[in-house]
Amino acid sequence: MLEKIDLTKKMGKKEFKQTMEELSGKLGTLQRECRNLKIPVIIVFEGFGAAGKGTLINQLIQPLDPRGFNVYAINGESDEEQLRPFLWRFWTKTPENGRIAIFDRSWYRRVLIDRFDGLTTEKQLGYAYNEIVSFEQQLTDGGNVMIKFFLDITKKEQKKRFDKMLESKETAWKVSKGDLKRNKHFAEYKMMNEEMLQKTDTDFAPWTIIEAMDREYAAVKIISTVVDCLEKRVSNQKELERLAREEEKLENVESVEVKPGFKSSVLSSADLTLTYTKEEYKERLDELQKKLSLLHSELYRRRIPVILGFEGWDAGGKGGAIKRVTQCLDPRGYAVNPTAAPNDIEKAHHYLWRFWQTFPKAGHIALYDRTWYGRVMVERIEGFCSTQEWKRAYKEINDCEATLAHSGAVVLKFWMQIDKEEQERRFKERMANPDKQWKITDEDWRNREKWDAYEAAVDEMLIRTSTTYAPWIIVEGNCKYYARIKVLETIVKALEARIK
Amino acid sequence: MLEKIDLTKKMGKKEFKQTMEELSGKLGTLQRECRNLKIPVIIVFEGFGAAGKGTLINQLIQPLDPRGFNVYAINGESDEEQLRPFLWRFWTKTPENGRIAIFDRSWYRRVLIDRFDGLTTEKQLGYAYNEIVSFEQQLTDGGNVMIKFFLDITKKEQKKRFDKMLESKETAWKVSKGDLKRNKHFAEYKMMNEEMLQKTDTDFAPWTIIEAMDREYAAVKIISTVVDCLEKRVSNQKELERLAREEEKLENVESVEVKPGFKSSVLSSADLTLTYTKEEYKERLDELQKKLSLLHSELYRRRIPVILGFEGWDAGGKGGAIKRVTQCLDPRGYAVNPTAAPNDIEKAHHYLWRFWQTFPKAGHIALYDRTWYGRVMVERIEGFCSTQEWKRAYKEINDCEATLAHSGAVVLKFWMQIDKEEQERRFKERMANPDKQWKITDEDWRNREKWDAYEAAVDEMLIRTSTTYAPWIIVEGNCKYYARIKVLETIVKALEARIK
Repeated sequence: MLEKIDLTKKMGKKEFKQTMEELSGKLGTLQRECRNLKIPVIIVFEGFGAAGKGTLINQLIQPLDPRGFNVYAINGESDEEQLRPFLWRFWTKTPENGRIAIFDRSWYRRVLIDRFDGLTTEKQLGYAYNEIVSFEQQLTDGGNVMIKFFLDITKKEQKKRFDKMLESKETAWKVSKGDLKRNKHFAEYKMMNEEMLQKTDTDFAPWTIIEAMDREYAAVKIISTVVDCLEKRVSNQKELERLAREEEKLENVESVEVKPGFKSSVLSSADLTLTYTKEEYKERLDELQKKLSLLHSELYRRRIPVILGFEGWDAGGKGGAIKRVTQCLDPRGYAVNPTAAPNDIEKAHHYLWRFWQTFPKAGHIALYDRTWYGRVMVERIEGFCSTQEWKRAYKEINDCEATLAHSGAVVLKFWMQIDKEEQERRFKERMANPDKQWKITDEDWRNREKWDAYEAAVDEMLIRTSTTYAPWIIVEGNCKYYARIKVLETIVKALEARIK
Repeated sequence: MLEKIDLTKKMGKKEFKQTMEELSGKLGTLQRECRNLKIPVIIVFEGFGAAGKGTLINQLIQPLDPRGFNVYAINGESDEEQLRPFLWRFWTKTPENGRIAIFDRSWYRRVLIDRFDGLTTEKQLGYAYNEIVSFEQQLTDGGNVMIKFFLDITKKEQKKRFDKMLESKETAWKVSKGDLKRNKHFAEYKMMNEEMLQKTDTDFAPWTIIEAMDREYAAVKIISTVVDCLEKRVSNQKELERLAREEEKLENVESVEVKPGFKSSVLSSADLTLTYTKEEYKERLDELQKKLSLLHSELYRRRIPVILGFEGWDAGGKGGAIKRVTQCLDPRGYAVNPTAAPNDIEKAHHYLWRFWQTFPKAGHIALYDRTWYGRVMVERIEGFCSTQEWKRAYKEINDCEATLAHSGAVVLKFWMQIDKEEQERRFKERMANPDKQWKITDEDWRNREKWDAYEAAVDEMLIRTSTTYAPWIIVEGNCKYYARIKVLETIVKALEARIK
């Protein structure tokens, strides 16, 4: 993509001033419109060192209301960040609806500077391209405007700029050894940039190459690109919303309908007669907890992160199973993350954003009491998201779990299965017990009425999202003893397999 | 405090099991009551190495609903944390109302292990004690229950436990060189603990010493202490709320009344006739921005954090002044933090919590468009907090700013002063200009009606919170040119003074 770029483009001072004034006014107005329409915007700056990213970003933000944007300068990973998947620090920085996030360097560091410096392995490189494209697709599908700039200058110009900076004490420290090395091996580094541009130039997040030899020209091209993108989006937004609503009306019927005769049978084939006696249970529990305790310590030493998701019917035994797992763990090495209805901050982000906050550090275990699968269950059935959104979610979730697995995590997902009769028995038991009454609400009874719709949705979910790197385990749960042992056994086995 | 501790206390297995069962039930119920009453709880574990913190914390959390607490293991500071005041990582971890935060080691690290290891200087030690006491007072005043445990064992017992851990491959890695060193110099380290206990044992956050030679005894004492504290608090809470409401009814009158004749005159003595011509302004602006740009770069190199708070009347020129400051800064080194009404997450924390999130890293500049002073202005006048709360806030804010200053920060606070006529002129101008209409709302007009009450509150605030380490600067703002230059001049002067 850099081949055909004409780096001689320029702009006169007078034309520059006039154009900038006009664009600044427009940009300020567009920012307010985006805030009102709750459109999140991501602007990425990549390109060669000394191409003027800092100055150009500063010019871009001058017309903006400072209350509506953040600038993130992306340096090497901190020790905390090194313990997470590389996208973690970017997911957690994605903007709230209506806000703008500007990245001075970005997730592309992984496939550029870090690759050049040998910090990214060949295997990681392949994963990284896929993960980046999926990340950008998820965000743009989720409503983000994504604008990506690549600032292009020549090797000679870069050298000239570095030399000038090195002359003065005030700026010399800004030129790093890495900068000089990349200038020396400019052709090699340029090839990496070229490859990156080709692999990540998509219809949903295209690159705009900025000829950055002339700063006035570059500034105007950047700001007018941003203005164009936002104008298009703002004018499309209402039309889009109208269409989405109409589409929903047509499609919603399909989303809960269960076609007789074609019912999949993942759940119904679970053998719910499986049991353990209390003695068998106690013995196995004790043995498995001891093993798990040692494995936890070993995981910590080897810096392996573990993600355990728990889903299932209300009163299916999630809480009890989680408790039997955590009882034997060192509390400094695990966290239980309950997933309730999203709060207002969470609602203003991509639905996966809140889970990214809590994905575990290397060596830690994160347990989820309900998970990101809410998207394809409760959100689907209650109509909290559009048909398009929950259909898209299967791939998004698979991609997300692949990212976790590639970062070295063990990912297991448990479906706690009981039948409708057992649920009723447990609901009634809870209501009769003063210590357990709080566990049961009217909503639980209401959800129960939608059993068939949920069953169909769960069957589809289990089929579409059980992967080799993040399998679903259906836990036969009518007997609590059996269920808890199966959960522990599965975890112990998976961890032993990983460690060996 | 450790002098008189009898470390021979024990408990039989049978008594232990029975007592624990009873206590567990109570604790589970109390956790739910605290959640319903929105009481935040902080539990701190300190004490000698190998005293059993991990095991005891695990026993404590077993009866708890995992959706309602977090356990934080506090190790040495990460590179990110080193760039902030030492309380930053703790402030940001304080629990939401209704939740429990459990700290395995805590802010006391600063005056214990880090002191022993020579990481805390004598000067920092003095500050740290004050800051810790103030931190705990602010949190308990803000409604947190604070329970602090100190786990006590003998030198001999510690040695025995370390030796046992070192015998097995699975546990040997848990014993650090530091652990062994502190065992070797047990008396010296114990003295530091003794000093810490004496200096930080307060009525609002008392220490409970746990005789940790016998694990059963220790577990029961810990859980029953927690149960006692929470029982007391829960039963007091409703009574407290009732009293607070009555108190408010009596006191609220006082809070907005302006006693004639005793009006302080901080604001009214500002000379609002001061002006610059456009030419003077442009020349000074250019010169000051160039200076500031170089100073920013120097600050970054020297890792000095800067905090600039902007308060003032609506339409007082905060935004314009902030813009003139940021125009010349590298966007990677500053952030503008707007302060709006708190969102629901922020409301569920101490009012200073959200500002702690954004206090700058060393070398960065944080600008605040409105600040934590809302507590003693809008919250006071609109009755969003109790009289007791805003009265307490002066000291809390001073302590907070002292903590920032002690961590090396430059802290400046600007009050943008205009008179009532100038405000009216600007409001009308904004309404007449289609590009500025969005800046003005009905609320602005309503606030204007309370000018006198605000003036009295601001006068009191300026007097009580202008300190040597974090001064208020009253900016005469009827002439925007004059105001912006004064802001820039003050910043440049303060930064030059710090650097020289």
